[in-house]
Amino acid sequence: MTAVKQSTDARGPARLIGVDWGTSSFRAYLMDGAGAVLDRRDSADGILAVQDFDATFERHCGAWADAHPSAPILLSGMIGSRQGWVEAPYCGCPAGAGEIAGKAIRHVTARGRGVAFMPGLSWRSPTGADEVMRGEETQILGVAGSGRRILVLPGSHSKWAEVVDGRVARFATFMTGEAFAAMSKHTILGRLMTGEGHDPKAFAAGLAASGEPGGLLHHLFRVRTGGLFQRWPGEALSSLLSGLVIGHEIRGARDFFGVEQVLVVGGASLAARYVEALSALGIEADVGPSDAAAHGLRLLAAQISAPDASR
Amino acid sequence: MTAVKQSTDARGPARLIGVDWGTSSFRAYLMDGAGAVLDRRDSADGILAVQDFDATFERHCGAWADAHPSAPILLSGMIGSRQGWVEAPYCGCPAGAGEIAGKAIRHVTARGRGVAFMPGLSWRSPTGADEVMRGEETQILGVAGSGRRILVLPGSHSKWAEVVDGRVARFATFMTGEAFAAMSKHTILGRLMTGEGHDPKAFAAGLAASGEPGGLLHHLFRVRTGGLFQRWPGEALSSLLSGLVIGHEIRGARDFFGVEQVLVVGGASLAARYVEALSALGIEADVGPSDAAAHGLRLLAAQISAPDASR
Repeated sequence: MTAVKQSTDARGPARLIGVDWGTSSFRAYLMDGAGAVLDRRDSADGILAVQDFDATFERHCGAWADAHPSAPILLSGMIGSRQGWVEAPYCGCPAGAGEIAGKAIRHVTARGRGVAFMPGLSWRSPTGADEVMRGEETQILGVAGSGRRILVLPGSHSKWAEVVDGRVARFATFMTGEAFAAMSKHTILGRLMTGEGHDPKAFAAGLAASGEPGGLLHHLFRVRTGGLFQRWPGEALSSLLSGLVIGHEIRGARDFFGVEQVLVVGGASLAARYVEALSALGIEADVGPSDAAAHGLRLLAAQISAPDASR
Repeated sequence: MTAVKQSTDARGPARLIGVDWGTSSFRAYLMDGAGAVLDRRDSADGILAVQDFDATFERHCGAWADAHPSAPILLSGMIGSRQGWVEAPYCGCPAGAGEIAGKAIRHVTARGRGVAFMPGLSWRSPTGADEVMRGEETQILGVAGSGRRILVLPGSHSKWAEVVDGRVARFATFMTGEAFAAMSKHTILGRLMTGEGHDPKAFAAGLAASGEPGGLLHHLFRVRTGGLFQRWPGEALSSLLSGLVIGHEIRGARDFFGVEQVLVVGGASLAARYVEALSALGIEADVGPSDAAAHGLRLLAAQISAPDASR
């Protein structure tokens, strides 16, 4: 990258409206050309919660768009899936802001506003396994920086990504959060759980156990016997299970990516949990900025408003 | 063991009544002294399905007990748990028929019949993890034989056991069946599943994938993308998931026990699935006899009716 191009990327349009619209959340940002967030909307209007996407967008962002009619409007996340408003097909990896913005799908809303739906990312592993993400790539772009970096975005489906000079080279999904919820709520393991507070000692024990022989399906059973034999109180069992699954995720990702240092991108409390776990397993961990998605949307907007800069 | 003792064990009482009474099933056997099953009852009257254990026992076995008033009556399985009829505390490993029968709890039923509740087994691993089983130990005794053997009893909670000269040395639980059900029914993975039939190709693909880097939480996601990208039809996804979790179980057990040869004890269709999986992973597998529980109950009865033989 040349200094000139960086400057072009960074300047972007005078104002922009970026929406990170996922399954269960709606986060919108009004930004200036340097990426400073001037105003924001956070709501639970995820795509599963609303019927009329156009009206929901108007309700949250219509006043911004009226005030700044020339501001580009970008939407990323599950809103661009088949279950969303307008489908934007996946963009294959390796991909950076240029490739992603280049696959955006243009649409005109009921109020006549031009908006752009960002694609998600896909990657096919050498062994033929497909990977997909929608929305996380915006956050990843926002913290990608230069050089090689391994990022983790923890959650229901944790995403680990290898980023090289601002482009996502490959990534892998771990169904940690969803497996934790299913095992807690829909198996015998939940029977003895009496709370969900964080118990650091039980969490650490789960992390340590995840490295023993036998694998996850075996280790899970000690959440049962840990309660049966009263080695742990009922209120610690959830943390024991959490340590087990997060420990397995991290060990699996270490095998996959060869991780020594990780940037954790996510909400404060979950990010803190991952830093705790990564450190316990000897991996250096930092926490990314909380406005990663806004920053990523700004980089995408710069590509859309000045497409030549990405070629 | 001397020839005399074997003869004593094998002869046992003239008639015996053995009940393998689990969470969701009730299986009772009327046997002669050589262990031949003269009559049997199979029902869904597991401990979760019935309120009055005494009446349920009478309904299924009362006529046998009336006809053979001197026949010992043994009950094993979850019926001896805290949620069952009479609690029989766990017997620690290593344990064989002598140790297990020695910890039986005697009880007199409402009709005045003397019955004996068999304990379950417990084992504490060198790393401090507790293991428990109730009922499976009866089947294990029934097929234990002599020398060292590794057995697997597949199910919701698969039990792997190392048996040395008829005594359970150690064992490990894998929550394979329950994790499969929870992931199929209560996560996004079930959304694209359109059937539960066995698809050998998808099952084999799941087994193979279970050996790739990343671990189970990562591998699970390919059941999602395998459907999304139409690499597998919806009716094959259940088999793909089944191959993944059974593959992880077997690889975990191999690490745990150092398995080269396994005896599979269980229902015909699940046993066949495990033999298929074990063979695919290069482990020699045989299927145990279907009457393992009856045989085990007979060995326990011999210890109870001739306790000196076990000392």
